[in-house]
Amino acid sequence: MSGNCWGRAFQVTTFGESHGPALGVIVDGCPPGVALSEDLVQRDLDRRRPGQGPASTTRSEEDEVEILSGLFEGRTTGTPIGMIIRNKDHQSSAYDALKDLFRPGHADLTYFLKYGVRDHRGGGRASGRETAARVAAGAAARAVLRGVGVSVKSGVIRVGDVEAIERDFEEAERNPLRCPDAEAAERMLELVMECARSGDTVGGVVEIVATGVPAGLGEPVFGKLDADLAGALMGIGAVKGVEIGDGFAAASRKGSENSDPLEKGGGGHVASRRNFAGGVLGGISTGEPIIARIAVKPTPSIASEQDTVTKMGAATKVQVKGRHDPCICPRIAPVAEAMALITLCDHLLRQRGQTGKAGPLGELG
Amino acid sequence: MSGNCWGRAFQVTTFGESHGPALGVIVDGCPPGVALSEDLVQRDLDRRRPGQGPASTTRSEEDEVEILSGLFEGRTTGTPIGMIIRNKDHQSSAYDALKDLFRPGHADLTYFLKYGVRDHRGGGRASGRETAARVAAGAAARAVLRGVGVSVKSGVIRVGDVEAIERDFEEAERNPLRCPDAEAAERMLELVMECARSGDTVGGVVEIVATGVPAGLGEPVFGKLDADLAGALMGIGAVKGVEIGDGFAAASRKGSENSDPLEKGGGGHVASRRNFAGGVLGGISTGEPIIARIAVKPTPSIASEQDTVTKMGAATKVQVKGRHDPCICPRIAPVAEAMALITLCDHLLRQRGQTGKAGPLGELG
Amino acid sequence: MSGNCWGRAFQVTTFGESHGPALGVIVDGCPPGVALSEDLVQRDLDRRRPGQGPASTTRSEEDEVEILSGLFEGRTTGTPIGMIIRNKDHQSSAYDALKDLFRPGHADLTYFLKYGVRDHRGGGRASGRETAARVAAGAAARAVLRGVGVSVKSGVIRVGDVEAIERDFEEAERNPLRCPDAEAAERMLELVMECARSGDTVGGVVEIVATGVPAGLGEPVFGKLDADLAGALMGIGAVKGVEIGDGFAAASRKGSENSDPLEKGGGGHVASRRNFAGGVLGGISTGEPIIARIAVKPTPSIASEQDTVTKMGAATKVQVKGRHDPCICPRIAPVAEAMALITLCDHLLRQRGQTGKAGPLGELG
Amino acid sequence: MSGNCWGRAFQVTTFGESHGPALGVIVDGCPPGVALSEDLVQRDLDRRRPGQGPASTTRSEEDEVEILSGLFEGRTTGTPIGMIIRNKDHQSSAYDALKDLFRPGHADLTYFLKYGVRDHRGGGRASGRETAARVAAGAAARAVLRGVGVSVKSGVIRVGDVEAIERDFEEAERNPLRCPDAEAAERMLELVMECARSGDTVGGVVEIVATGVPAGLGEPVFGKLDADLAGALMGIGAVKGVEIGDGFAAASRKGSENSDPLEKGGGGHVASRRNFAGGVLGGISTGEPIIARIAVKPTPSIASEQDTVTKMGAATKVQVKGRHDPCICPRIAPVAEAMALITLCDHLLRQRGQTGKAGPLGELG
Repeated sequence: MSGNCWGRAFQVTTFGESHGPALGVIVDGCPPGVALSEDLVQRDLDRRRPGQGPASTTRSEEDEVEILSGLFEGRTTGTPIGMIIRNKDHQSSAYDALKDLFRPGHADLTYFLKYGVRDHRGGGRASGRETAARVAAGAAARAVLRGVGVSVKSGVIRVGDVEAIERDFEEAERNPLRCPDAEAAERMLELVMECARSGDTVGGVVEIVATGVPAGLGEPVFGKLDADLAGALMGIGAVKGVEIGDGFAAASRKGSENSDPLEKGGGGHVASRRNFAGGVLGGISTGEPIIARIAVKPTPSIASEQDTVTKMGAATKVQVKGRHDPCICPRIAPVAEAMALITLCDHLLRQRGQTGKAGPLGELG
Repeated sequence: MSGNCWGRAFQVTTFGESHGPALGVIVDGCPPGVALSEDLVQRDLDRRRPGQGPASTTRSEEDEVEILSGLFEGRTTGTPIGMIIRNKDHQSSAYDALKDLFRPGHADLTYFLKYGVRDHRGGGRASGRETAARVAAGAAARAVLRGVGVSVKSGVIRVGDVEAIERDFEEAERNPLRCPDAEAAERMLELVMECARSGDTVGGVVEIVATGVPAGLGEPVFGKLDADLAGALMGIGAVKGVEIGDGFAAASRKGSENSDPLEKGGGGHVASRRNFAGGVLGGISTGEPIIARIAVKPTPSIASEQDTVTKMGAATKVQVKGRHDPCICPRIAPVAEAMALITLCDHLLRQRGQTGKAGPLGELG
Repeated sequence: MSGNCWGRAFQVTTFGESHGPALGVIVDGCPPGVALSEDLVQRDLDRRRPGQGPASTTRSEEDEVEILSGLFEGRTTGTPIGMIIRNKDHQSSAYDALKDLFRPGHADLTYFLKYGVRDHRGGGRASGRETAARVAAGAAARAVLRGVGVSVKSGVIRVGDVEAIERDFEEAERNPLRCPDAEAAERMLELVMECARSGDTVGGVVEIVATGVPAGLGEPVFGKLDADLAGALMGIGAVKGVEIGDGFAAASRKGSENSDPLEKGGGGHVASRRNFAGGVLGGISTGEPIIARIAVKPTPSIASEQDTVTKMGAATKVQVKGRHDPCICPRIAPVAEAMALITLCDHLLRQRGQTGKAGPLGELG
Repeated sequence: MSGNCWGRAFQVTTFGESHGPALGVIVDGCPPGVALSEDLVQRDLDRRRPGQGPASTTRSEEDEVEILSGLFEGRTTGTPIGMIIRNKDHQSSAYDALKDLFRPGHADLTYFLKYGVRDHRGGGRASGRETAARVAAGAAARAVLRGVGVSVKSGVIRVGDVEAIERDFEEAERNPLRCPDAEAAERMLELVMECARSGDTVGGVVEIVATGVPAGLGEPVFGKLDADLAGALMGIGAVKGVEIGDGFAAASRKGSENSDPLEKGGGGHVASRRNFAGGVLGGISTGEPIIARIAVKPTPSIASEQDTVTKMGAATKVQVKGRHDPCICPRIAPVAEAMALITLCDHLLRQRGQTGKAGPLGELG
């Protein structure tokens, strides 16, 4: 596995830069016989697309996917699924001023230090646009997982200091903040609009919940389900923290406060009473909902002038122009879902390979 | 890479159960010519060993390493380094009562659900003892990294609600809490002693800092340095959250508050003024200190009786006996260091392979 | 690494079926700064293209490559290189008769048994067309290797019973059999024409020679250079055997006959007197020319009727129509070159990662 | 996967040098619940052990295996199986004369060129002793495969120019040449004895046959079953060629001669009439016996003096002393079996992961 590839059994490799001809992805290891189509993938891509609300940039990315292989008569064949998304809205000249200097908080500096060369147009490979390819792959994973009853949802549960109380993920699909709490969504929107007006941005927290996940997914030591989820989620640009279950809150507790007794749940399977652990014990799924949260930093593309240096090391100022999201969280949510879907699908297939089952729903006896 | 293997260029595979004959590890991909010895590895193992203070169990694990291969005349040869640590202190019968039931908060349930069989003695593969193998591998990584000036340190910066203010990692080596703040260490100790007296446990936060890391480590999309660190650290038992740099705090900020201008640092390399990002931009190291923090849940091995179920699904009670750490944080710190060392070493070699350099310290011009 | 991916440091993943929208490949891990262009890739693709002589099918595959990512201003950036080749010449209906039965000697049967579904049009994923994607990736590897002085050539050294004596690889580029012996090429051509007339096909042997390969490439035990080359070459359709150096001939010899003394060669590096080993000792390159040969079976697409069975298991007859190569060897040669190039490039980068050098040319002292 | 690791789902990593403290192996990904014991592994190790006949060295390798993990109450638990074999018969001083020079035909030169340092004692990591670790891993694979009815056998079918006609693999277990033809075995023995008397060695060919292999194993393009077998077998020291099915013989044939019609075999599954392809079509198993052959060069450790060079590049002579096999083939056979077993087991688990089945025996309908 290289640095552009995720998963071992269900393996996703992406390519493409923000302002090159196209983005793309190969999904390798998808089981045969799964119903999949460009429409189905497009549906997920459309959820990530910008220009859907005030929290979002107005860049018109159509993000139209073309599936090049791996399908036959509407079903997967077991061979790799190649998909591409053309870049149509090139405004490369907007980035000319950034050619020889580095935007603070961006990958400009580090790409240059690593490779000695960089495609400066729109962030190149480090652009958020690359995540469209991940979302396309996530749609394939979703198609596989749907067949075994697994569902992954997400919502923005915090923007700046505004926190959601409710977890109504249907609601999250309706409001522009993708917030699972209608009341909080309104206050979040106010905050974001205020940022937009002042050329500022704001961070937040996204929660991802997977239900119907069979018990038994995850490997003992280094391929733990929660560890792979953490790697998958931290690998999204702007993400600076990941929690599973109660996360950092658990670090303040005593063992007696954090005790989570086991009991026989509905349907005969075992469940912990409070799911403090977020559906994972010892790195392996319990059959309960898997809960992860990610901390998203405010995007560094603010309107005010910032100090920086040029490629030659001289001090200078930079003012980032162009169309940018005042709050990236609503668009990160579908990407986080995609990474969770891919990771869960990967572990489902690994589990099936090693043990011959896709994992029972925590049944004993 | 399987579920017991970490790293791609510097590849670490561990094996072993808590009460089996031995634990062990293979370090594959270590460059030739690096000075290494059993003494050097033992030094790191001794830092993880229990029984070193009131926060720790009194189980006498000697954790004596034997290097079986990969060394010749005191230096690595480039061939795999095999190391084993015998399990000497078997008290398997202490675990007989746990054979047919599952301790809440432990991996007992999930191993059973996954594999249909489990070695119930002392947690088997899921035991914290397995981390001794990781620490041994980390010592090899430390030896490689020392040669290029990279140093990794760690400390317990929170226990329950007691927080460290200082970051004196020399001090962390002196007090039993491994806290980098002598004053806070005393209050932490009081809290831990109180837990020990009442048969309770307490969680905390560990911080890991790597200095001297060359710029350019990390891959563009899925092998990001921060993502791999997150996966490495979340894969340690009891860890429920990972932050890089300012982590969750950044999620509350506005972009203008989180702005971190670039400037020419001492020695001619570029630096961000405040290192909010924790040494990683776009998933690639900047040359600045890399800072990570992990949330450690209180160990679930508390003295009070808890509800649980048996293998057959019947409700029952369990009281966990035996020797357990009231606060696992001081012992997790060296493991977290080891995982960071392994991950950094892996990326150093990957970077060297792809670009022919181990990465400059952020020099421009 | 999945089943459609080759290489670890220089990683090639292909996708695409014979009669789907397109074939494609992602080359991940290519070093930055390497001069590459569509023209350069096209040059290699054109050598694989059919319709170039009597030994070849007349299907007009234009095989026009489009590079979608990883290049900036004519040089690689270190990010993945995505390339696609559209399938233009669909004559899917020609394959309708094959929908429910299996051609003997083809992958029809096994794809069906494995996946339960198959794209029967033109062999689907198992078609020789897929190798165009490998050749495109090979062109990228060639660009990298050229920079360190490595060159890979190939030629058809046997067709049926006609054997080449000379090894003039310039000549191989001139005659339609891609035979490095002009005189033998004529006799091969006669044999192939005779086969073409009678609707028959014929097998042969292809030799691949790599010069300028630094000493030190290859890993000790399972990633041996010769083992990886064997895997790379045996993975080409129709290949049934691989030899390194003297191969099967060495199996008949005594040790005294096979002795190959070492001596100081020109330029101060060590060389074996006769290079019986084909440039690899203990799985690691010596710095001498690497020599491999592959056995190519006659393509099973013959004009005469053959017994077979249907999907339902009923006995039937099949007569394979369409445009087929009477001798596939001249078209396999560029594919074999590509696989050797990819494998050598992969090992070059791995070697550089582990030891910090790309390997000296066998210099001592 | 590193250079000391083989397999993706069933993953084998070995370590150890000829004259270090021990050899070892980790088998990761073994399914839970498989009956395994040190006795079972020892049985396979004993078949590889030297000193069992005139074709073999008299070095007394006891090769006693110790299983350190992954077993509980006689069955695998799904966690990694660690095994070690102590090196007991150190006669390191016998190798002192080789410290500063390179034996022709050995890996001495290339290890030095690659790593700049080498453990010269007994070939170090490149010693045939390393293969004991592979055989131990093969025994675990055999235990898994036995459960699904797969059996792997091998025999020496050629020594120098003496060829076996029969394929009686029971007989192969009885004679010291491990030849499946009692009559040929006698003539082989004469040839080997003659070599032993004159301090010479001789090469040969080993055949490996796997029966009961389900249809559907192998991946479409780069993880083909035959390609992985080729890589696995070419990775054994002294092997210079690999054939699948009719191999190089097929290269001389016409398509009409090589035609192998499909028909309904006994038990209702499909079979090719003659199995020319050796049980693999398009890289995927057909359900028929899988047949591979390897060319083994004569070991270069001959008694007569050979020209060579020193580490400093000076011309010198070397005479290899010590105990060496006049014909290594009978000892390579169990290693080749092990590599085939590991590779088949790996593909069985990969197939089960991707398609949910371990592959039918070629049933249609």
